[in-house]
Amino acid sequence: MIKVVILGTGNVATHLFNAFFNSEKAVIIQVYNHQPENLKAFAEKTSTTTSLNSLKKADVYLIALKDDVIEKIAAQLQDLDGIVVHTSGSVGIDVLKKFNRRGVFYPLQTFSKSKEVNFEEAPICLEAGSETDFVTLKKLAESISKNVFPISSEQRKSLHLAAVFVSNFVNHMYVMGEEICKEKMVPFEILQPLIKETANKVTTLKPSEAQTGPAIRKDQKTIDAHFSVLENERQKEIYTLLTKSIQQFHGKEL
Amino acid sequence: MIKVVILGTGNVATHLFNAFFNSEKAVIIQVYNHQPENLKAFAEKTSTTTSLNSLKKADVYLIALKDDVIEKIAAQLQDLDGIVVHTSGSVGIDVLKKFNRRGVFYPLQTFSKSKEVNFEEAPICLEAGSETDFVTLKKLAESISKNVFPISSEQRKSLHLAAVFVSNFVNHMYVMGEEICKEKMVPFEILQPLIKETANKVTTLKPSEAQTGPAIRKDQKTIDAHFSVLENERQKEIYTLLTKSIQQFHGKEL
Repeated sequence: MIKVVILGTGNVATHLFNAFFNSEKAVIIQVYNHQPENLKAFAEKTSTTTSLNSLKKADVYLIALKDDVIEKIAAQLQDLDGIVVHTSGSVGIDVLKKFNRRGVFYPLQTFSKSKEVNFEEAPICLEAGSETDFVTLKKLAESISKNVFPISSEQRKSLHLAAVFVSNFVNHMYVMGEEICKEKMVPFEILQPLIKETANKVTTLKPSEAQTGPAIRKDQKTIDAHFSVLENERQKEIYTLLTKSIQQFHGKEL
Repeated sequence: MIKVVILGTGNVATHLFNAFFNSEKAVIIQVYNHQPENLKAFAEKTSTTTSLNSLKKADVYLIALKDDVIEKIAAQLQDLDGIVVHTSGSVGIDVLKKFNRRGVFYPLQTFSKSKEVNFEEAPICLEAGSETDFVTLKKLAESISKNVFPISSEQRKSLHLAAVFVSNFVNHMYVMGEEICKEKMVPFEILQPLIKETANKVTTLKPSEAQTGPAIRKDQKTIDAHFSVLENERQKEIYTLLTKSIQQFHGKEL
């Protein structure tokens, strides 16, 4: 049984806690947060603490805190007799260099408080300071996911950036779709099969092969017609830039 | 049995042909294209013609041709003893006004030649010149899909525009994710669970509620870090504009 202390009580911490809670190979022996009210939800299920000096002895300390807090917390901690890892996609392993044993445990998934995540499918990107610690982190990751990858700090930076495009920016496209539908009283639900199929397509086709639409067809008549329907500057700017980008990218390819 | 003639042999025509071929309530009695070589794939399964003067008598004539060709073909046709419909999201019903009976049969889905489409889930947006013809088109649509909606020409224009955002532009975000991963030899597959979950999320949450990422958190440190990883101008421009747009949209909301 791998003993884990989680530092943090936000989205990532909560989803990891729930995933480990159902795992048979890992156990959360403690959750830390500096605010006692944030610990209430966890107190029924495990030990909790508001003091960094009272952390229990564990195999892995998971710092699941906001990016800019990781460094501060690391500075306040004594070296620990276990592997100290953070869960951030955009922070390097170096921020933990004061610890003799360190690593990164980055679950590449989008977390919302109100929606459960199927961790089995969520890729977990691992990095460790030593081969032995990598093996331990791998066991821990495989106890909740079947997609575990070794990813360097440099690769992780790119992956995190790519994730912003394929998830955060994609969701903003959904927001704009919703906004456009709302204006004409069209229910957003009509778009959901299209959204699903667009996501599914890239499991069998390369994204560049899956591109469709007026931009890649250079169908200027439709592009002009769309432009006349667009109701605000924000939408117009985005429509123009992405149409240009699609044409540049695929022009380059031909 | 509703008798259908399809005019066109492109992506939409082919996918509709296959869907109707498996339906028990409709039969494709003929496929038209002006180029004989495009008809070869259909000739084994139904009657074909290269002449607009030799169209068979049918209940519905489905013009599944490029947007700018619909009007030309309509001009060449005599009035037909059946409902003449087109399948375009961006063309109004008016383009068919010379026909006594007319309509629109717009399947809101993304079609690629090389990937089969599950039509059952694809919404079909219908418009008709009369109540009676609407009923016939509804029967026809329901023979291949369980998501059939009455949508006016004006609504369809907005829907088609919204579809560009949630499908074509979304796919371009996938293209950029792939491009970023490739530079660091990270397999694009790692992003697929995230892509799927991002699409799934908006079946239970409103897109505006599902937004995550550094832009909405106003996490300028991560935004700056991403910017230093971006390798080309196209990516930088898009990153900047979408980050600004997310902050404007959600600033407005608060």
